[in-house]
Amino acid sequence: MLQILARGGGDAVRDDTFSERLGTIPHPKGQEILVKVLATSINPVDTKVRMRTPSSTHVVLGHDTNGMIVDTGEEVTRFKKGDHVYFMGQGKYPGSFAQYQLADARTAALTPRISSYAEAAVLPVVTFTAYDALFTRLGYISAGYANTGKTILIIGGAGGVGSMAIQLAKWVGLTVIATASREETVDWCKDMGADFVITHHGDLVDQVRALGIQWVDSIFCTTHLSAHWEAMAELIEPQGAIALIDDPDGPLDIRLFKTKSARICWEFALVRTMYETSDIQMQGFTLTKIAQLIDSGKIRSPLTETLYGLTVRNVQKAHIRQESNTMVGKQAIIISP
Amino acid sequence: MLQILARGGGDAVRDDTFSERLGTIPHPKGQEILVKVLATSINPVDTKVRMRTPSSTHVVLGHDTNGMIVDTGEEVTRFKKGDHVYFMGQGKYPGSFAQYQLADARTAALTPRISSYAEAAVLPVVTFTAYDALFTRLGYISAGYANTGKTILIIGGAGGVGSMAIQLAKWVGLTVIATASREETVDWCKDMGADFVITHHGDLVDQVRALGIQWVDSIFCTTHLSAHWEAMAELIEPQGAIALIDDPDGPLDIRLFKTKSARICWEFALVRTMYETSDIQMQGFTLTKIAQLIDSGKIRSPLTETLYGLTVRNVQKAHIRQESNTMVGKQAIIISP
Repeated sequence: MLQILARGGGDAVRDDTFSERLGTIPHPKGQEILVKVLATSINPVDTKVRMRTPSSTHVVLGHDTNGMIVDTGEEVTRFKKGDHVYFMGQGKYPGSFAQYQLADARTAALTPRISSYAEAAVLPVVTFTAYDALFTRLGYISAGYANTGKTILIIGGAGGVGSMAIQLAKWVGLTVIATASREETVDWCKDMGADFVITHHGDLVDQVRALGIQWVDSIFCTTHLSAHWEAMAELIEPQGAIALIDDPDGPLDIRLFKTKSARICWEFALVRTMYETSDIQMQGFTLTKIAQLIDSGKIRSPLTETLYGLTVRNVQKAHIRQESNTMVGKQAIIISP
Repeated sequence: MLQILARGGGDAVRDDTFSERLGTIPHPKGQEILVKVLATSINPVDTKVRMRTPSSTHVVLGHDTNGMIVDTGEEVTRFKKGDHVYFMGQGKYPGSFAQYQLADARTAALTPRISSYAEAAVLPVVTFTAYDALFTRLGYISAGYANTGKTILIIGGAGGVGSMAIQLAKWVGLTVIATASREETVDWCKDMGADFVITHHGDLVDQVRALGIQWVDSIFCTTHLSAHWEAMAELIEPQGAIALIDDPDGPLDIRLFKTKSARICWEFALVRTMYETSDIQMQGFTLTKIAQLIDSGKIRSPLTETLYGLTVRNVQKAHIRQESNTMVGKQAIIISP
């Protein structure tokens, strides 16, 4: 079967950074499922993995899968051959830029019924990340209107995670202040449901205060963590919480949050598969819930661009687009038509 | 009335750092109570306040009060004259090293019935801090045996906060690993109920692993935060939480906690009074609960030393003892016999 690899040493997207190879179709055991990959997507983590892969090695890229089950391990009871499922990639298995892929059945769910291949393929990583940040780390109640009266600041509202965080926050009743800096991204954030959009190139504190809001109950910082650190300490409500997914540039002064008695919460979507935690099946359950939210129209796919065909050229194009820092929503790659 | 002041500029405990003065007995309004102070205690925060007070000013020291109500504001309904109450000092009011003191009634509770003046006086700050860290910040369930099967590492087990954290953690069913470095403090931690005591002068990771424990569910770091930062990142369970009360020496690398998707939670006991949060009455309710735990024998006062008389000499002695970094448990000062 065809797979697209990052060959390592890829500081920039160059022609020699990727290659194809023919791998052997694996056989599922135990809780594993084997899927024929229908579509995948690009995430910021893919470009990081490519850049950090040592030049002596290679890795099959891709963290999002929309696929059809072609075989199941002997312990799999939730799915059968022919089921369409979607899931996040996991460290233990090769990535989704391949014709076939193994996964842990406990991390998968039936795809939304109303989504296209591409629409469903861009959902898992960003929607799970936003869901986990809001409801596991920040502790909001995951039910419609359940958190009415509270305000969240989402820094980086137009990216994949930001787009889903805005929609999920609105679903549960939060007032949402999102940040975006261009006309296109401001419009996108409003389209996702943001109540207010401010620019992250301006002073965040002044802009939030100009809305008549002294403090926000929580902050979800999806990008440029170090640059916004001091503003977050100023804006967070006493006893509030901050969720992070973005690496800081270096050490940070956590004392700024002390007298607020605030919490700083890392959201790392792959923690359960990386450490094989006892709540690993929470990934599958959450994606099932997300499919219900899509099918009932509460949230929608952030798909904005689709590339056709599992080729080195398409993967290169997608990475260049991702690294442009001007991405709005998400890109999909269709693998099997 | 007599008050003991820090006069500012007190980098070290010198004879001229403290002084007495005669203040006017204030009059309680609204939710305020006026108490005759029976006993107070010394906390690490007192030495910090003394050292940080600018030399141009002065401050009445003391954060713990055990007192008798002598007058109440017109909105006070929970207490009456003659009630014995205990509470934590608050930024808005002068401290407890005084014959009389004002407080917000919502932050006070009736003292434990079985405690002496000194035993009750050392409880509020350290017990509230430990209670808030375990049950508000780390999210444990505040009921007997409710968290059985989980393990907490308490760094600095023999200090005031550590002593109460060990006892409260044992009450709710946690397995407790405490750190202490001298024979006296090791014995104290065991006496407080710690299941295991390891030394913070040795490698924490090696010592915890030697107990057959790979990860701990949570860590409460009461001291030397920067020195233990890397060990905490290694020892914390994926999706675990860390509570902090101690200032770090400088900026810290929070990336170490990313793949664990861990939370870093500040516990600042005075946050509710400093920012006048809507849950300010939680302080009074918590101290009521703590008095019940004392009276039912679930926990006990960490009192180890008692000084008699509100004098400059006694306050100096207590600060010198606190700054020796060899304190076990807590010191009280009896003000009114």
